[in-house]
Amino acid sequence: MNADLADMVVRECGRRWPRGATQPPGRLLRPMLVLESAMAVGGDPVRILPAAVGFECSHVGGLVQEELIHRAVSPAADAIVAGNALLFEWFRALSECVDRGVPPERVTEAMRIQASTGLDSCRGTEMELAHTLHSGLDGYLRMARLKTAAPLAAACRVGAVLSGATPAQTNALAEFGDGLGLAYQIREDLKTYERNVEAVTRDGRGDVRVRRLSLPVLLAHDAAGSRDRARIERLLASRSAPDRLPQLVEIVRRTDACGTAMRMAEQHAAHARTVLTALPPSGHRVRLAGMTSTLNALIPSSRRHVDG
Amino acid sequence: MNADLADMVVRECGRRWPRGATQPPGRLLRPMLVLESAMAVGGDPVRILPAAVGFECSHVGGLVQEELIHRAVSPAADAIVAGNALLFEWFRALSECVDRGVPPERVTEAMRIQASTGLDSCRGTEMELAHTLHSGLDGYLRMARLKTAAPLAAACRVGAVLSGATPAQTNALAEFGDGLGLAYQIREDLKTYERNVEAVTRDGRGDVRVRRLSLPVLLAHDAAGSRDRARIERLLASRSAPDRLPQLVEIVRRTDACGTAMRMAEQHAAHARTVLTALPPSGHRVRLAGMTSTLNALIPSSRRHVDG
Repeated sequence: MNADLADMVVRECGRRWPRGATQPPGRLLRPMLVLESAMAVGGDPVRILPAAVGFECSHVGGLVQEELIHRAVSPAADAIVAGNALLFEWFRALSECVDRGVPPERVTEAMRIQASTGLDSCRGTEMELAHTLHSGLDGYLRMARLKTAAPLAAACRVGAVLSGATPAQTNALAEFGDGLGLAYQIREDLKTYERNVEAVTRDGRGDVRVRRLSLPVLLAHDAAGSRDRARIERLLASRSAPDRLPQLVEIVRRTDACGTAMRMAEQHAAHARTVLTALPPSGHRVRLAGMTSTLNALIPSSRRHVDG
Repeated sequence: MNADLADMVVRECGRRWPRGATQPPGRLLRPMLVLESAMAVGGDPVRILPAAVGFECSHVGGLVQEELIHRAVSPAADAIVAGNALLFEWFRALSECVDRGVPPERVTEAMRIQASTGLDSCRGTEMELAHTLHSGLDGYLRMARLKTAAPLAAACRVGAVLSGATPAQTNALAEFGDGLGLAYQIREDLKTYERNVEAVTRDGRGDVRVRRLSLPVLLAHDAAGSRDRARIERLLASRSAPDRLPQLVEIVRRTDACGTAMRMAEQHAAHARTVLTALPPSGHRVRLAGMTSTLNALIPSSRRHVDG
């Protein structure tokens, strides 16, 4: 993590949202991707800082929407409004880059990327809502790409475009973001199955996460014998199954689905690191590459007893 | 209504959304405002057509959100996603104007206007949710401005900016849109109280509309004696009041609140027509001015027995 750059982002967020109400609770991954991508191609972080913090708005806005969609309760009207406002703020912040001297044709290109990415996320969420065991691995990857990887690829792409990167550099950075995003989503999916069952049950969200079809279950279903397949199908279909999580965890672990998923995550992370070699060597390139394993380290060490 | 221009908008909507799923159900008011404003200052409608139809997306997206907010039921996840997608489409469509030869610095300015207007609408919705009798007439007008007038003013402003209008022309068109929007909102508020009570009750939305505090009730509360004021307060506060609508209608009519509201709408419409004289004379200017009374004519003639 580039501490100076991170400080700049945190200060800018604090300046914009002084009351802390909309203070980004995230790890500032997207703003850091925008800025490191920009600097990896010789861009000026000060000029594009508004666009970078704007990406944190899109992230928080997306989390609000996600919460609204996956909670079965009637939503607070305030949350709908707040989610919307954050998405508009994403574009308002981008428009400030013109005042800081970024050429307008780069800003309009960034707007196109943001809008398309927003639409991609919507399509990804739709896919997630319709996702079943029959969507298969391809369906899962398409969904993860639209929903999770697209926004990270967009952050890299916008940083590059606003800095006047060549098309080859821009595409390399976008491909890096795509790989990073896929690796990240797969590792997120793994968490539920690698943590201690009691811990997952305790936080009260375990069952929600389990029913949202994730990669380990999909892989376990692929690898399992007919009896386990039927059990998985039954467990996912039933409305209320108090022992759903421990049973799924048991099948997932027995079929080594977590090991398979972990290897897939590693492949996407490795690909992301490889495409970065198209950029000139720099500390920014090193830090971007590092993000593919930093995010890995965020997965609790408890996973180790699973894959060996 | 400029029939050729309207045809162009309808064809473009059909081309973009062939399945009719997101076919705009509205009266295409916002796209027409974008195009007529553009042409009133010498702009080319073909170049800015994507931005114009994009405004219909923002309109339909706003209606979806409105429905989600004011229904007490749990929302369909699909509706949240669709509402979002339409807002992103607003910006994606705008980005196409660059491909049609609109200078990028005009497009970035239009993006800034759209994003700020989106934020204004969010603030207006928040005000509406917190609105009480004590917000007074000023509170009502602030809310109506943010929620209803701002998007119409933005449509006019974007049409002007994309066409390279002078700042004076752009401001005149925005002020026109503001007056048009206020007149429109006030007339919308009037409908519930001017229609036959049975008709309002029959469509099942009467009570929802009545509880969403509207101008006639606010004016009646201002004009009424202490007994009627107390009655209004009681009627609005009670959770279930089957006779709420007829009782409110009776007080509203007795205090001539509809007459007062109608005069307010007329003042805003007249002001909108006046500011247009800053533009060079043209058929477009005439049609814009005409919109302030066309929308008037949409109010059913039943109103006449109220204010005369």
